[in-house]
Amino acid sequence: MERLSSYVLGRWQPAAGDLTTLVDPTSEAELAAVGSGGIDFRAVLDFARTRGGPALRRMTFAERGKLLAAMAGAIHGRRDELIEISIRSGGTTRGDAKFDIDGAIGTLTYYAGLADKLGTKPWMLDGAGVQLGRTPRFWGQHVLVPRSGVAVHVNAFNFPAWGMMEKATCALLAGVPVLEKPGTPTALLAWHIAQTLVEKAGLPEGAYQIVVGSLGDALDHLGPQDVLAFTGSSATGAKLRGHAQVVRHSVRVNIEADSLNAAVLAPDVDPSSETFGLFLNNVVLDMTQKTGQKCTAVRRILVPSDRVEQVRDELVAQLARIVVGDPADKNTRMGPLASRSQMEEVRAGIERLAKAGTIACGGTQPVRAKGFFVAPTLIVARDGRDPTFHREEVFGPVAVVLPYSGDAQQAAEIVNLGGGGLVCSAYSNDAAWSHAFALAAAPWHGRVWLANDKMAEQSLPPGMVLPQMVHGGPGRAGGGEELGAERGLAFYQQRTALQGFQGQLQSGW
Amino acid sequence: MERLSSYVLGRWQPAAGDLTTLVDPTSEAELAAVGSGGIDFRAVLDFARTRGGPALRRMTFAERGKLLAAMAGAIHGRRDELIEISIRSGGTTRGDAKFDIDGAIGTLTYYAGLADKLGTKPWMLDGAGVQLGRTPRFWGQHVLVPRSGVAVHVNAFNFPAWGMMEKATCALLAGVPVLEKPGTPTALLAWHIAQTLVEKAGLPEGAYQIVVGSLGDALDHLGPQDVLAFTGSSATGAKLRGHAQVVRHSVRVNIEADSLNAAVLAPDVDPSSETFGLFLNNVVLDMTQKTGQKCTAVRRILVPSDRVEQVRDELVAQLARIVVGDPADKNTRMGPLASRSQMEEVRAGIERLAKAGTIACGGTQPVRAKGFFVAPTLIVARDGRDPTFHREEVFGPVAVVLPYSGDAQQAAEIVNLGGGGLVCSAYSNDAAWSHAFALAAAPWHGRVWLANDKMAEQSLPPGMVLPQMVHGGPGRAGGGEELGAERGLAFYQQRTALQGFQGQLQSGW
Repeated sequence: MERLSSYVLGRWQPAAGDLTTLVDPTSEAELAAVGSGGIDFRAVLDFARTRGGPALRRMTFAERGKLLAAMAGAIHGRRDELIEISIRSGGTTRGDAKFDIDGAIGTLTYYAGLADKLGTKPWMLDGAGVQLGRTPRFWGQHVLVPRSGVAVHVNAFNFPAWGMMEKATCALLAGVPVLEKPGTPTALLAWHIAQTLVEKAGLPEGAYQIVVGSLGDALDHLGPQDVLAFTGSSATGAKLRGHAQVVRHSVRVNIEADSLNAAVLAPDVDPSSETFGLFLNNVVLDMTQKTGQKCTAVRRILVPSDRVEQVRDELVAQLARIVVGDPADKNTRMGPLASRSQMEEVRAGIERLAKAGTIACGGTQPVRAKGFFVAPTLIVARDGRDPTFHREEVFGPVAVVLPYSGDAQQAAEIVNLGGGGLVCSAYSNDAAWSHAFALAAAPWHGRVWLANDKMAEQSLPPGMVLPQMVHGGPGRAGGGEELGAERGLAFYQQRTALQGFQGQLQSGW
Repeated sequence: MERLSSYVLGRWQPAAGDLTTLVDPTSEAELAAVGSGGIDFRAVLDFARTRGGPALRRMTFAERGKLLAAMAGAIHGRRDELIEISIRSGGTTRGDAKFDIDGAIGTLTYYAGLADKLGTKPWMLDGAGVQLGRTPRFWGQHVLVPRSGVAVHVNAFNFPAWGMMEKATCALLAGVPVLEKPGTPTALLAWHIAQTLVEKAGLPEGAYQIVVGSLGDALDHLGPQDVLAFTGSSATGAKLRGHAQVVRHSVRVNIEADSLNAAVLAPDVDPSSETFGLFLNNVVLDMTQKTGQKCTAVRRILVPSDRVEQVRDELVAQLARIVVGDPADKNTRMGPLASRSQMEEVRAGIERLAKAGTIACGGTQPVRAKGFFVAPTLIVARDGRDPTFHREEVFGPVAVVLPYSGDAQQAAEIVNLGGGGLVCSAYSNDAAWSHAFALAAAPWHGRVWLANDKMAEQSLPPGMVLPQMVHGGPGRAGGGEELGAERGLAFYQQRTALQGFQGQLQSGW
C-alpha cells in the first residue's frame, strides 16, 4: 500500500510513526497510509521563516502572481488524473471533483490577475495619506506589510484541492510561506496536488511545505509573527484558539467552522415565479453537491407555515430523482460521505433532528451494502424555533424545513438562532421584505445572498464561494474571514502606520 | 470617605461588596472606595444589547456623531475641575492631566467630524461593488454593519480619560453599546467623566454603562456578537483571550498590551542637527510625561556604539532638569507613579535591568518620604542584545541605552527582539537608512515613526496617539488595533458580503 510522504525542509520525508489508513469511501478498499512521525516541527517552521519567507518577499506582487499562475497551470496539467483521484479517494462524483479542483485553479488564477494591480512597492497602501502637521510635511500613511512568520494551514477533508489553495493563494501572494496540513481522510488528492506544485510550479525553497498526518507539536513553536488558519469543527477551532502558545504570543488565528446556513422563502414568492424555481434548485444542489459536505451548504430551510407542505413535496420529488451510488458511474448524482466517521456522525445527526420533526425523505437506513452512503434526507420541524435545529451542524445531505410566520424580522430572528453563519440566502421579489431581512441577518453572517426574479437567471448559487467576496462568519462560524479580493491578504499582513516627512514616505521604496 | 457608584441598568448603583480604597499617589491620603458587589452582570450585558444597541442603531452616523460632540462638550464643560481631580487622584502634573483629558475631548471631536462622512445608510460601504454575473445584474457589495452585541471595555489606569473615550468613541459611532470598566487606581477621574456623560451628553439608555471595581462574572456571559477590548498587561491580556467563554463563542478580542517601544538614532545624525535635538527631546518627554506610564513611551534607546557616551551625557543632563515632586506645584515636571504596586514593580524592574547594565541616573532610592515616586532612570546596557532588555516592560520613567553597530538592518533586528510593539521611532537624515530600517521593523510594529530635519519642526512626538492613525501592535503588544479613522470602527462591525440584484443592493435601504 502506498505511503504518503510529507514535503518538509526541502525534501520528501517518508510516512512514519503511527500510521492512518485512507480508504475509498465507495468500496472501502484501502488506498494509502499516512503518518508524520519523526518530523522536527520546530525546524520545519524555522525553515519556512528563514528560507521561504525571505525568498517570497524578495519577489514583487507581480512575480508572486506569476507563481500563482504557475501553480494553477501545474494543477491544470494533471486535471484529468486529479479528478480520478478525487472520485476514488473522496467519493466525489465527477461534477463534485471538478467543483473542488476547478475551484482551486480558479482561485489561483483570480489572485494571479489581482497581483498586477497591487503595485510595485514592498507593501500595499492602505487608504490615502493623511496630513498630520500644520503643513503636509509631517505626514501619515498606513501600509500593509507581509508578516515575517509562517502561515500554518489546517484544512478540512471536504475540499482537499480548493480549500488548500484558497488559503495558500492569499498567504503566498502576501509574501508569507505556508505549512499545509490537509484533512486526513481525503489527503490523497491534497498530496498529489502538493507533489505537482513542488515539481512543476517553481516554488522557492521553504515557501510551501505539507505535512500529511498530524501536526505533532507544531503549535507549541508558533511565534508572534506566525498565523494559524483552520477550517473544520467549532470544537477543534476553539481548541486551537485557546492553545497556550497561541494565546501567549497573540498568534493570529482565522477560523472557518460550523455554520447552520439557512435559505428563507418569503411569502410573496409565487410558485410560478423564477425565484421559486431557483429556491428549489439551490436547496437541492446544496443538499446533494459534495454529498452535503460543503461548509456553505444549506442546513435550515425557512418556509411560511402555510407553504410548508407544498415546499416539502416539491423538494421530496426533486430529491427522489438524485441517483445515489458509485461516483465513478456517470449517472450517479451523489456519492458517499468521505469517511466512516462522517457517516456515523451524520446518521446520529439525523436521529437527533428527527426527534423534533418528521422525516419527509431519506433517513438513517443503509443505502448500499458497502461504502459510507447516506440518502438525501429532508426533515420537517414541528417548531421552527426548537433549539435542536439551531445548535449542531449535520455535515451531510441533510436539511430541515422550519415553518415561520412569513415576517422578515422573525425570519432573521430564527436564522440568527444559529449563532453566526457563513451565508444565508433569502428569496423574495418584495424589496422591502429583502431589505428588512438583510438588515437583521447581516450582523450574524459573513454573506447574505438575496434572490429575486431579476437576478435569477444570472445568479451563482449561494453555496459557491467566490474569490471576490469574503468567506467566513461570526460566532459559531469561527469569527474568521478569507478571500474577498485583496481583503484576503490582510490576515497575512501587518497594518503599520508610517509617520514622517511626506517626501520620504512617498518615494524611494 | 466617598464611595464610587457604578452606572448600570439605567441607574447609579452604590459601591458594595469587597471595597478597594483609592489613594492620592502624592500624599497617600485615602480618596474613595470602589466595589461592584451585587451587580447582576448578565442583566447589565442584556440591558446594553436590548436597550442601548437598538437605540444607537436607530440613529444615523451623523446623529451618533452629534452624540460624540455632546460628550466632548460635557467633558469640556468640567475641564478645570477634571484636571484637579486628575492631579489629586492620578498624581499627574497639570500638563499630564491636560494631555489625558484633552486627548479624550480631541478623540471625541475628531470622530464627531468623521461621522458626517460615513453616509446615511445603516451600514458603511466597504470598497466598490463587484459584478459577479455575466452582466451587472448579479452583483456583490461588501458592507460593514454594526454588531448586535455589547462592547466590554477594560481600560488601564494610566489614561482614565483618554483611554476610556478612545474605545467608547469608536464603539458608539459604530452603533454598539459600551460597558466600561476603568482601571481601578485612577477610577476617580473616570467616574467623574462618566457622571458628566450620563448627566449631560444625552446618551440613550443602555448605550453607556460603567462598572467601577471588578467585572465579576461578566465575561462568562459574553456571546458571539459581543466584543471585548482590553488595555493593560500582556499577562492579563492572555488570560482574557484564552477565557473559555470568549474562545467558545469566537468573541472578538482587541488587546493593547506591553510594548518595549524603541527610539533609534542613526549614525548619520550630526549632534548639531535638528534631528538630534528632536531625538533627545522626544526621549526625555517619553520618559517623564505621565511619569513614563504611557503605553507608547520609549523603553529602549538604540545608539551607535561610538555615540553612547555622548547620548548618555546629554540625556542625563536633560533629565537632571526634570523637577520631580508634588504635581500640584506648578514647577513640578514629573509626579509620582499612580499606585504603590506600580512603584514597587518599577523599582523591581530597575533592579532587574541594572544587573545587565549601569545606572547613569536615577535608580530605586526613595525620592520623597511620602508618595509613589521614582526618579527618572537611565540605564546603559553592556550588550544591546541582552534578553533582559527585550522581555519585560518597566512601566515608569525608565529607559535603557542599547549600543548597536549603526547598521539599519541590525537596528531593526534588535528592536524586533521586543516581540512586537506599538511604535518605534528612528532618527536619520539618510533616506536609504530610514527605508531599510522601516522595512525591517514594520512587520513587528503598529506604527513606525521616522524623523529627519525636514519634519522636525512640525512633528508631533512618537508617543502621541492620533485618532487618524491606528494604535496597536502585534505579538507582545497584544495583536490589536484601535483608532485609525474609520478603521477603528471595524472591530465593532461585521463585514458582510451582500450578493444579489444590483438595483436592490444599491437602493432603498
